Amino acid sequence: MTDFPQTKVNHVALTPASFLKRTQSIFPERLAVVYGNRQYSWKALYHRCLQCVDALNKQGIARGDVVSVMLHNTPEMVELHFALPMHGAIINTINTRLDASTVAYILDHSGAKCLIVDQQFQPVIMAALALMQQPAPQIIEVIDAQSDYNDPIPKIDSITYEEFLATGDTQDNWSLPPDEWDTIALNYTSGTSGKPKGVLYHHRGAYLMAMGTIPAWGVPQHPRYLYSVPLFHCNGWGHCWMMALVAGTIYCLRQVSAKAIFDAVAEQNITHFGGAPIVLGMLINAPKTEQRAFSRTVQVMTAGAPPPPAVLEKTGQLGFNVMQVYGLTETYGHVVHCLWQSPWDELAFSDQAAIKSRQGVRLPICEDIQVLDLETGKPVPADGETTGEITIRGNTVMKGYHRDPEATKKAFVGDVFHSGDVAVVHEDGYIEVKDRLKDVIISGGENISSVEVEAILYQHPAVAHAAIVAQPDEKWGEVPCAFIECIADEQPTAQEIIAFCRARLAGFKTPKNVVFETLPKTATGKIQKFALRVRAKDF
Amino acid sequence: MTDFPQTKVNHVALTPASFLKRTQSIFPERLAVVYGNRQYSWKALYHRCLQCVDALNKQGIARGDVVSVMLHNTPEMVELHFALPMHGAIINTINTRLDASTVAYILDHSGAKCLIVDQQFQPVIMAALALMQQPAPQIIEVIDAQSDYNDPIPKIDSITYEEFLATGDTQDNWSLPPDEWDTIALNYTSGTSGKPKGVLYHHRGAYLMAMGTIPAWGVPQHPRYLYSVPLFHCNGWGHCWMMALVAGTIYCLRQVSAKAIFDAVAEQNITHFGGAPIVLGMLINAPKTEQRAFSRTVQVMTAGAPPPPAVLEKTGQLGFNVMQVYGLTETYGHVVHCLWQSPWDELAFSDQAAIKSRQGVRLPICEDIQVLDLETGKPVPADGETTGEITIRGNTVMKGYHRDPEATKKAFVGDVFHSGDVAVVHEDGYIEVKDRLKDVIISGGENISSVEVEAILYQHPAVAHAAIVAQPDEKWGEVPCAFIECIADEQPTAQEIIAFCRARLAGFKTPKNVVFETLPKTATGKIQKFALRVRAKDF
Repeated sequence: MTDFPQTKVNHVALTPASFLKRTQSIFPERLAVVYGNRQYSWKALYHRCLQCVDALNKQGIARGDVVSVMLHNTPEMVELHFALPMHGAIINTINTRLDASTVAYILDHSGAKCLIVDQQFQPVIMAALALMQQPAPQIIEVIDAQSDYNDPIPKIDSITYEEFLATGDTQDNWSLPPDEWDTIALNYTSGTSGKPKGVLYHHRGAYLMAMGTIPAWGVPQHPRYLYSVPLFHCNGWGHCWMMALVAGTIYCLRQVSAKAIFDAVAEQNITHFGGAPIVLGMLINAPKTEQRAFSRTVQVMTAGAPPPPAVLEKTGQLGFNVMQVYGLTETYGHVVHCLWQSPWDELAFSDQAAIKSRQGVRLPICEDIQVLDLETGKPVPADGETTGEITIRGNTVMKGYHRDPEATKKAFVGDVFHSGDVAVVHEDGYIEVKDRLKDVIISGGENISSVEVEAILYQHPAVAHAAIVAQPDEKWGEVPCAFIECIADEQPTAQEIIAFCRARLAGFKTPKNVVFETLPKTATGKIQKFALRVRAKDF
Repeated sequence: MTDFPQTKVNHVALTPASFLKRTQSIFPERLAVVYGNRQYSWKALYHRCLQCVDALNKQGIARGDVVSVMLHNTPEMVELHFALPMHGAIINTINTRLDASTVAYILDHSGAKCLIVDQQFQPVIMAALALMQQPAPQIIEVIDAQSDYNDPIPKIDSITYEEFLATGDTQDNWSLPPDEWDTIALNYTSGTSGKPKGVLYHHRGAYLMAMGTIPAWGVPQHPRYLYSVPLFHCNGWGHCWMMALVAGTIYCLRQVSAKAIFDAVAEQNITHFGGAPIVLGMLINAPKTEQRAFSRTVQVMTAGAPPPPAVLEKTGQLGFNVMQVYGLTETYGHVVHCLWQSPWDELAFSDQAAIKSRQGVRLPICEDIQVLDLETGKPVPADGETTGEITIRGNTVMKGYHRDPEATKKAFVGDVFHSGDVAVVHEDGYIEVKDRLKDVIISGGENISSVEVEAILYQHPAVAHAAIVAQPDEKWGEVPCAFIECIADEQPTAQEIIAFCRARLAGFKTPKNVVFETLPKTATGKIQKFALRVRAKDF
């Protein structure tokens, strides 16, 4: 067989930056980004990215350097997701709710050369800079005229983002990465156990994630997409890159609230958005005065924690069609989705909601998902009952943990990525996540899925948010302890809640204690169970 | 920056075979292939492919061996597009209308180890085997009970396809190609000038072609796709692989006719199909008794020769929404598509047809399309007038021409693939193909686009098919000569045709001779201009 080497003609590095270049040339005047009174066409966005590339060069930032970004979902955050990959720098988004010591750790560990930050975060950044071990990065401040934080006099040694941009010109001479395996992003995990780990993404994976989400979510040309998922979380699930591919319009959102989402859907004709189940909870629990009617069904992708069927059912009744997905920071976001089967159209709403609470099947870009028995390492039977750990193999699994080959090796044992999530496989092959490995409660030798008990709690009309964690117990080892945040004006008793669960669950799964309080949540809306586990020891 | 090598966990060869494996597991019972009274679910198709892989192994076919296939668009043709890539053998589809000496040339040149052939082609194969220089391949005959060619007694030394398949079992132990750059297909060009050239495709390109066509054509989940494009032509534009990705249903078609298409659209609710402009011509010129009404708009992808606006307008009126694409065998099929812009919705039907007759802009998977001035090699201005040669760069450009490094080098000059097609670039960046380089007529120093003159001829109500070729002329060097196939019962005179053109074209562009006859066409419906050029010398 004659064989030919790869050439510049027929082998081009896969990178999502290509999507922007193409779309700005085909749809120059279509809206790319809308944020209140600011809006940019695809051409304007591209020009700002070209300026940014040149400005980065002039700042001495080189290909492969890390640029940290601590921003809300404002236009700067979107454009940096293109400009940095075009330049060849690595985008390191920082969770905007982190404390100073964690920010300092990330800046030190990533070796960031530059930090682009919203002025709102001056206090935490000043504190972080004082804590850093390594030389401080250059600081570029984004001043958002539409926020409450727009002090024209910066308190730290910095230039403004617009000053920085103005140093660059718009010559179009950026180049594709030399290798599609080159790093595009560095995303730190939430670090609920120990120090955050730096997850490395490559251009190839980001390209495939954007392209593969289109058939997976049925995304048409020109969607109107509300960016309610923080872009600091798995690069906003890669949706910004997908929007460039389908020439959509991205509606920015500085602060997520039920009112902001309902207003955008009603006034901007939003067609798609994403959000953690807690966002769905916000929507269904919003006051009637904030809930607005809209004529089209809005497509919603949700991920983060398994949303209880009751939440899915109520969300559907409001006009949102929710597709649940599953993934991790280590997999660029979603690798599993609850792909709809047409026979399910005939089912009752509540039965549909039960199906939608499953995570589903692998995306087209994901090569293999297995649920492996924790003891034998063999795939569990598809019986809907036997639990195992989800493992993943495919082109959207991270390169590894930055500066941590040991942790990388441990995560990649047996040629698959170990998710640390426990699931069952249903008869039809759809997987259902039962828990984080470390959230499973072991009571008298029996495993209790905290998710299963939480799903029951969410059926109670007074419950807004709920979490079940393990509480040490002399007799049983561990017992389930419930933490509940109630809907305004509702005040059930612990006895009522326990009785409600007992009527629906086996005795050993029923919570032994119930605590009513506002639940601690992460920036992405996940309930911080690790904090609750600590508190549960006191009861 | 820490860097990590590719591992089995996070780097998986891109191959369209993955789509089949995924879809058969998620939608096992959905129909994959329908052919008259035969139909296969995705699971059944997969099982036949597994059997085929094992049967190939038992026949001694190894990874990298060439298997030639000379079949109509029957279920065997579809399944071999999956089974051969799963096995690792290279699929070499042979145009079913080729003569024995060309078939012999292809079998010799490709080094085919095996030939899978429809029994209809026994005569040509027997003749080809006699002409071969190299050892003959093993012959496997497909006997199609739904055709007129199903003689149970094979005349050549062969086994039947079903006997062959029965030797394989359905154990699921095939593996991905070791490298996504490995060859998946070997497709010979039509060889209008000299010997056919063998174009090599790799798995990576086939994967990206399938995935990138989804946003480019707006393909939803579960389309009902009529396979009217021969699968021997650029592997049916890669649509079979795309159908596996979106779990569509492929409706096979042994023989394309207007009646067969209208019947399938009306009875099988076809949503998508593809075809050369000649197929569109068949549809609009079909007798009223064959044309059938249908309620949905059917999406049609067309390519091959630029369809005249008049044809596009009439097709649209019948309920077909045509998207024109452009590409070559060397680019896996389409790399340019006439992507719709919403402001065009407001235009009149005829203006829309004029736009649709442009080829358009690059697909998301194509990195760069340029139209380069033939003399300077610089991009032509976007003025809709200046012509140049289309050049292409991207991951769906062939690896090269099999056993022909010289021709490969020539095609790849300047780090782009040279298409040999002449086009202009309109102000909005959409390209419009004017001609094959070799079809341009040079008359008195002026270039005449044969396509432009043909578009005028197609406006004449008596014209069914038309071709303009160069005729040698003592005074002008060359002059345009028209070959016309009339609609039944229409008999215009040459003078009428010339006057019709003269009223609409510059004098030097007006045909000097008009010949009325049935036009010679290739298997894919292209008019064989090379044959007409020879004939034009006689007038």
